[in-house]
Amino acid sequence: MDFKEELGKRTQEIEMILSACAPKEEGYQKTIFQAMNYSLMAGGKRLRPMLIQETYRLFGGSHEAVVHPFMAAIEMIHTYSLIHDDLPALDNDEYRRGRKTSHVVFGEAMAILAGDALLNYAFETASKAFDLAEDTEEFKCVAKALQILSSKPGIYGMIGGQVVDVEREGQPLDKTVLDFIHEMKTSALIECSMMIGAVLAGADGPALNKVEQMAKNIGISFQIQDDILDVTGSPEVLGKPIHSDEKNHKTTYVTLFGIDGAMAEAEHFSQIAIDLLEEMSEAKGMENPFLMELICQLVHREK
Amino acid sequence: MDFKEELGKRTQEIEMILSACAPKEEGYQKTIFQAMNYSLMAGGKRLRPMLIQETYRLFGGSHEAVVHPFMAAIEMIHTYSLIHDDLPALDNDEYRRGRKTSHVVFGEAMAILAGDALLNYAFETASKAFDLAEDTEEFKCVAKALQILSSKPGIYGMIGGQVVDVEREGQPLDKTVLDFIHEMKTSALIECSMMIGAVLAGADGPALNKVEQMAKNIGISFQIQDDILDVTGSPEVLGKPIHSDEKNHKTTYVTLFGIDGAMAEAEHFSQIAIDLLEEMSEAKGMENPFLMELICQLVHREK
Repeated sequence: MDFKEELGKRTQEIEMILSACAPKEEGYQKTIFQAMNYSLMAGGKRLRPMLIQETYRLFGGSHEAVVHPFMAAIEMIHTYSLIHDDLPALDNDEYRRGRKTSHVVFGEAMAILAGDALLNYAFETASKAFDLAEDTEEFKCVAKALQILSSKPGIYGMIGGQVVDVEREGQPLDKTVLDFIHEMKTSALIECSMMIGAVLAGADGPALNKVEQMAKNIGISFQIQDDILDVTGSPEVLGKPIHSDEKNHKTTYVTLFGIDGAMAEAEHFSQIAIDLLEEMSEAKGMENPFLMELICQLVHREK
Repeated sequence: MDFKEELGKRTQEIEMILSACAPKEEGYQKTIFQAMNYSLMAGGKRLRPMLIQETYRLFGGSHEAVVHPFMAAIEMIHTYSLIHDDLPALDNDEYRRGRKTSHVVFGEAMAILAGDALLNYAFETASKAFDLAEDTEEFKCVAKALQILSSKPGIYGMIGGQVVDVEREGQPLDKTVLDFIHEMKTSALIECSMMIGAVLAGADGPALNKVEQMAKNIGISFQIQDDILDVTGSPEVLGKPIHSDEKNHKTTYVTLFGIDGAMAEAEHFSQIAIDLLEEMSEAKGMENPFLMELICQLVHREK
């Protein structure tokens, strides 16, 4: 398997799925469609929809049509959270992935509404999957997937983490609060993605719990790597300025444990994730080498 | 039936259902729970959850537990839309129902997040109804209700109307655009409520279309009355200043057709709604006199 080639193919497929689910830019409310698509179709790694699809494949799912609405939905949720994060009242960012942010292009009112619209449309899109279910069993899997889609990004997941992050900005944090923020803000959507993929392929009980644990550890490791790269990375490779955490007096694993300590922690969490994936692959008697490689790249990534 | 007494009882019951679904104010992210509850539990007519429950009863629904999560969800969606409407970048309102608005009390960042949180939590709450369904039939009704809950408040419903209203602020509008805004901004959530009640009680096909039509006409009539009261009402009875539309150069049915013309239009739309309700009640061989009175009050209301 040529990983890079496979990654390119899959990313392209996801772009097509997103395009198919994105609103057509017509009607009196055209501006909101334009604002939604401006941010949704701005590229990016498409990591979360990819994790849905690859976890579905790991668990032997064979009716991919039912997965597509959820792949689009999770990317809409991720995108809404970025639009609202960038707002003047929050991070006040002018650029995201090298493009002007939503409120700079469309104005603040429309950016707020575009975020609302994407969050709402994520659920509208995902709940269309009921119409694609081929039998009652699959119908019930869609319902379970919707429960996950509506809980992990919410107040006991991503939003919960975002709130604590915003409230404690500039204050020193202890490891417990920092772990809470990481698990909620970063891991929750990764858990959401992988659990949805698993559930739609029929997984539940202990297998689903393992997926959740694996995803949680991937998220934490990913976040620690991000904090390390903010100190050791190169702005050219990262595509964003470094030392932003130091500038914002942000507590990270690096400030708590130093570079070497943070690297050891990242390694620790990635190893748990990879062990869990290997364990699951063996138990299921099936493998997804692409998913394994994707996760390895993710937790030992250079950018 | 003493309508006022019944209305009081039902409102109280809805307050209890909302309380039961509202988040407990504990944990690191406590502030967001407080901000959500500050706006959610601020009183109000609770019209939308009431319409869900009464339409469910009209269609002979008998397992009310499954309706409660949707009643809470629709009020969360209504509340999030008010919090975001009041933001400085939108209407910049300092007061709502005699209380300071969310961003005045909790700051702009937290108000944006509280709105997001309520919208997301609405779907989290409603999708718990799957766990309450007693058989596959009811399970499927919950799925259908979720599809309605995720579409009517969205870009082809409430948000769509809000966008056009914001974009054309201060511009003269023709009747077509004005009707679009009314149908999306005001009718959509009323349609959403009544259709959810009907669907959960097992209605579909032509009966469901009639409910949608009835709700649409209630919404339009309600909105025209609102515009008339902004000219003819008393600030004391309304609890808000009058002549705000004139001040904001807002096109309404009153500016298009004058007071008498607008009253005739309101009468026209209410009559369609009431005729449809009577027709349905007769066809079903059952009545909901409370719902009939509620709608009459709504479309001929004094406040």
